[in-house]
Amino acid sequence: MIPMIKADGKSELELIAALKQRSGEVDQKVTAAVSDILEKVKAGGDEAVRDYTIRFDGKAPDTLEVPKEQIEESLTQCDAQFVDALKKAAVNIQDFHARQKQQSWLTTKEDGTILGQRIRGLKRVGIYVPGGTAAYPSSVLMNAIPAKIAGVEEIVMVTPPGKDGKPNPTIMAAAAVAGVDRVFLVGGAQAVAALAYGTQSIPKVDKIVGPGNIYVATAKRLLYGVVDIDMIAGPSEILIVADGTANPAYVAADLMSQAEHDTLASAILLTTSNRLAQETLLELAKQCKKLSRKDIIERSLQDYGTIIVCRSMDEAVEFANLLAPEHLEMCVENPMEYVGRMDNAGSVFLGHYSPEPLGDYFAGPNHVLPTSGTARFFSPLSVDSFVKKSSFIYYTREALERDYPDIVCLAEAEGLTAHAQSIRVRFEK
Amino acid sequence: MIPMIKADGKSELELIAALKQRSGEVDQKVTAAVSDILEKVKAGGDEAVRDYTIRFDGKAPDTLEVPKEQIEESLTQCDAQFVDALKKAAVNIQDFHARQKQQSWLTTKEDGTILGQRIRGLKRVGIYVPGGTAAYPSSVLMNAIPAKIAGVEEIVMVTPPGKDGKPNPTIMAAAAVAGVDRVFLVGGAQAVAALAYGTQSIPKVDKIVGPGNIYVATAKRLLYGVVDIDMIAGPSEILIVADGTANPAYVAADLMSQAEHDTLASAILLTTSNRLAQETLLELAKQCKKLSRKDIIERSLQDYGTIIVCRSMDEAVEFANLLAPEHLEMCVENPMEYVGRMDNAGSVFLGHYSPEPLGDYFAGPNHVLPTSGTARFFSPLSVDSFVKKSSFIYYTREALERDYPDIVCLAEAEGLTAHAQSIRVRFEK
Repeated sequence: MIPMIKADGKSELELIAALKQRSGEVDQKVTAAVSDILEKVKAGGDEAVRDYTIRFDGKAPDTLEVPKEQIEESLTQCDAQFVDALKKAAVNIQDFHARQKQQSWLTTKEDGTILGQRIRGLKRVGIYVPGGTAAYPSSVLMNAIPAKIAGVEEIVMVTPPGKDGKPNPTIMAAAAVAGVDRVFLVGGAQAVAALAYGTQSIPKVDKIVGPGNIYVATAKRLLYGVVDIDMIAGPSEILIVADGTANPAYVAADLMSQAEHDTLASAILLTTSNRLAQETLLELAKQCKKLSRKDIIERSLQDYGTIIVCRSMDEAVEFANLLAPEHLEMCVENPMEYVGRMDNAGSVFLGHYSPEPLGDYFAGPNHVLPTSGTARFFSPLSVDSFVKKSSFIYYTREALERDYPDIVCLAEAEGLTAHAQSIRVRFEK
Repeated sequence: MIPMIKADGKSELELIAALKQRSGEVDQKVTAAVSDILEKVKAGGDEAVRDYTIRFDGKAPDTLEVPKEQIEESLTQCDAQFVDALKKAAVNIQDFHARQKQQSWLTTKEDGTILGQRIRGLKRVGIYVPGGTAAYPSSVLMNAIPAKIAGVEEIVMVTPPGKDGKPNPTIMAAAAVAGVDRVFLVGGAQAVAALAYGTQSIPKVDKIVGPGNIYVATAKRLLYGVVDIDMIAGPSEILIVADGTANPAYVAADLMSQAEHDTLASAILLTTSNRLAQETLLELAKQCKKLSRKDIIERSLQDYGTIIVCRSMDEAVEFANLLAPEHLEMCVENPMEYVGRMDNAGSVFLGHYSPEPLGDYFAGPNHVLPTSGTARFFSPLSVDSFVKKSSFIYYTREALERDYPDIVCLAEAEGLTAHAQSIRVRFEK
């Protein structure tokens, strides 16, 4: 059910090209429909949001906002073990992300000059949380906790109501644990528009993060610049590099853990061991049968999964850097040796006891990661994603007088005489 | 030539709305033309680049690349005072940006867990430098130096040749001072496409930065995701907050220093002093006459300039935060008092001897700043703009065994059974 090839330098490039195709083109029809929604919500506010909710979801809740008490109450409504696990995960996520926080700083000179950089949280951030089967409490933690640490004053969540018209209790529990300030029961492009422009009841935010369907993603893309957004996530990816010390049962299970996300997900094994390749194949067939998302797994492994037998670890490393996967597992004897060589990956999982789902839920680092090869230049979601910086400059008369001929010289070389004049006017009569 | 209004809460909002109009719509014709150029360069490489250069610039240089020696030689061809000023500016820019550099880090636990974040420079970055009158050596420094500090391995510059077919010597001198590695004589959307896809002679980069005309900006916008890009810069903006201690001659000169950039530039004065407002008006008229870019200045002051007389400093601060200007000057008695209150600005210039051009050329902080109100959520160009991060996770068997019931519980709550299985398979028979 998963193709197996031998590395030859050419097949790998073809595979990368095939995976790139998944990103797909921007859909003109969706763009037009979403543009229309954005305009209507911008002009019509709550009423437009309500109209779209009735049109797309059948009915709209009487009040959009979930009362604060109801968010807190969800902690007692959910399974106690689940809430406990959520809280432990939150502690780990908090601990890791707290280390990312940067401080404002300044530097002074003897002449009185002060230069600095102010770093502070965005004022208000919006988190989109999908409904239905894609309602993931772990995503709430991964998006809200770094924002909280960054010093964001208010975190607003939007999420569509369930079929019963109520919010998903596991999502509410995660919101409570993560410290989300306000929750509104609305989904789709209309929710994103409401966050970007503000309505009578939904406050305008500075940045919108979180996953969503094509309508949500398109709304975010179109609103980039009106607000900031996080990355537009592509299908999930795992690349496992394994040597002969790897356990084929573990490798197979880890491949399937990403393959189950959706039929476009990609799971690739690079191994120097022919034996491991063969045994992983058997394990995939054996384990897959028992999994509830078997059909999705089989389909994505067949379409976008591959086992590649490499001639050397160097070859595997080179291919991994070319592919720039979202998740990279190093199931090898000495994984630490490779930390400095894996140049393009969102998150790297080292050794035989660091399976990818450990990072999805629990270890601490963020699970919002660059996909589709963009780990070449993009980074995981972090505290930095929720701050803004500005520089400040204070010069004394003495300092400016010393530097002014140089500044005037540079301004005049660029033909910007009013720039030069603004320095000169302070010293020349 | 510049309108004057009294703050009344309403006029300010109208002004903000009027300024927002400047950003303009995406031009469909330009987008179509640029899309075509991108496709052709992707498929045709150097030959396509050459064809477009001949079509748009009349002729193409025999070889695209400027020899290394020619870059270095420009230092002796330019005016010595200019080169000296450039070098001093480079030292200040380097000194400021070096303080932004973040280190990779890791954290360990007693159970053997290692979690960390690797931070390193992008591999290759492309800098676009416009030709003609918009060829600014200061931009070369501001874009290349932070990349260099970030640890970018190779900095590639593209810039159109002058009418004589040769590179602009002041741009080459700045490239030499900033440590640009390679320079190619090509401009327009075809240059941006070449950087994104790579051609036979121009290497493919991970990020493209630098200002350009509408074709260059559209090419960058369309290629976002294929490569990373910096912000798309809007028209320049200055907001000056001044009290009665400000010197009207300085204030007028500083307003005009931004107004001269182009007719869409915006220069606004907020002052609590009616006298200062009146005197600034007189100074604008007086000083403007002598400036070479008088026509541009008059036009932009008339269309997008305003003097607003505020009832209090609080009102001025509130409006400044609403407008979120690119450049903010605090020409007031105690400027330091306001550092913590100016929430939305790209760069803040404090006191009577910190005119905006000081920051454009010399003080050290970057001059590539968020425009069009995006300082609400965007930050100045910095060393962070040229790095990529990845997280890494190493768990021991002992650590995973302790945490595994929690992870399984969370995965199952999300219905992702293959995620749960990848943890379980390591412990259950």
